[in-house]
Amino acid sequence: MAARLGIVAGAGDLPQRIADAARGAGRDVFVLGLEGFAQPPLPQAWVRLGAAAQGIDILRAQGVTELVLAGGVRRPSLLALRPDLRTAKFVAKIGMRALGDDGLLRAIVAELEGEGFRVVGADTILNAALAPEGVLGKIVPDEIARGDVARGVTAARALGALDIGQAVVVQQGVVLGVEGTEGTDALVARCASLALDGPGGVLVKMAKPEQERRADLPTIGPDTVVRAADAGLRGIAVEAGAALILDRAETIAAADARGLFIVGVPAP
Amino acid sequence: MAARLGIVAGAGDLPQRIADAARGAGRDVFVLGLEGFAQPPLPQAWVRLGAAAQGIDILRAQGVTELVLAGGVRRPSLLALRPDLRTAKFVAKIGMRALGDDGLLRAIVAELEGEGFRVVGADTILNAALAPEGVLGKIVPDEIARGDVARGVTAARALGALDIGQAVVVQQGVVLGVEGTEGTDALVARCASLALDGPGGVLVKMAKPEQERRADLPTIGPDTVVRAADAGLRGIAVEAGAALILDRAETIAAADARGLFIVGVPAP
Repeated sequence: MAARLGIVAGAGDLPQRIADAARGAGRDVFVLGLEGFAQPPLPQAWVRLGAAAQGIDILRAQGVTELVLAGGVRRPSLLALRPDLRTAKFVAKIGMRALGDDGLLRAIVAELEGEGFRVVGADTILNAALAPEGVLGKIVPDEIARGDVARGVTAARALGALDIGQAVVVQQGVVLGVEGTEGTDALVARCASLALDGPGGVLVKMAKPEQERRADLPTIGPDTVVRAADAGLRGIAVEAGAALILDRAETIAAADARGLFIVGVPAP
Repeated sequence: MAARLGIVAGAGDLPQRIADAARGAGRDVFVLGLEGFAQPPLPQAWVRLGAAAQGIDILRAQGVTELVLAGGVRRPSLLALRPDLRTAKFVAKIGMRALGDDGLLRAIVAELEGEGFRVVGADTILNAALAPEGVLGKIVPDEIARGDVARGVTAARALGALDIGQAVVVQQGVVLGVEGTEGTDALVARCASLALDGPGGVLVKMAKPEQERRADLPTIGPDTVVRAADAGLRGIAVEAGAALILDRAETIAAADARGLFIVGVPAP
């Protein structure tokens, strides 16, 4: 039997989905919730973000050797973090201010591996949901949409290279909106009011070129499709082999029902 | 006496400011308003965005030889544009969909020069308002803010190179928000709710590397300062020699009064 899987859980429903998938595969799971982020009742124990020593102790005491980090965590200020000694040492080492989200995640993963844990990506547990290349549903992007996807891939990768965001919305060649820290949902909602007349835009989500793939994969699901449709978008493009599609069948059915395409595109 | 100055006016108060400055310098001015964008009562004549032939005829009939394009214009779809023959020829030539805002503006400027007009930048008329290098008011950015400015300059230039936007908001090394087509005011307002605890962020506005400097310079004014202060930002950085500061004295006084810095930074 595989080692006990620890899930360090942030916000959103990804931790629950990972726990369900791991348990469904017969694995023993222990969920450590980050206070202020994880949603009850999933976590079996809780820890403050700034209490790294306590968190590591709990995971060891629970016999966890393999870890997955899942769900959103809003980066705190150093003051709000109230770091314990272990956390402070880590923060001093990496110089937290200088890192984007991705750099910070990579440092956390390295630190946990230094503590003897094996850190695995959500995709290794939710393997079936990694986006394949090509059109996923019944709707095929037309020429204008394909042009928008190409422009979006270039723009999203450039943003990712700067460790800024993963997503852009492009319509008729114009980059309507760019994701900063507000998240994809807020980006999509905002672009509804920025839309041009004529053929609707597309949402493009790509992994960052240097992305720590064990921590923060670009993710879409049925909710993303509904929000995109509500915002007048005509489709969604995600990076093949790097983006997670939650509830794949449901996501594709939602897109087909609303006339949206979903397409997996290779990294450039 | 200098040639009659034509102002093709879009949205916002920049056209009015240019008209005032030119008239103050003793120049004769003719303002052609773009329907749906320019604000009455400034324009002496009106033209649809899609009626290029009519616009050119009006400017010629008014004896205009020198032109400035000023104010915002929302890119229409080809359908909403209802192009006349002259406009359609232009659109067919440049392939409008493939261009970002900057590429489109450069093409328009080239086209107008091909018609015999001399197109000048707003900065040649509002010369005193081009941002100098260095700190402009009484507030000096601290080390954290200087780090945020440096990160913002890199990010904004990368966006500009892709012809996306001109502005970013950075706080403690994190790019909180990125300007797409929503404009700087909306970006700043959104970043209020994205702010981290601790030292506030900075707004950074840079010209695009390939920017057509006669058409769409990054601009700040007293309103920008008030909005930035309301959003909890600690300062504003603009590209020296390339960004316009409207009402320079009033802008600096507003920043001093609210404890914000304004700094002109060279292009990297």
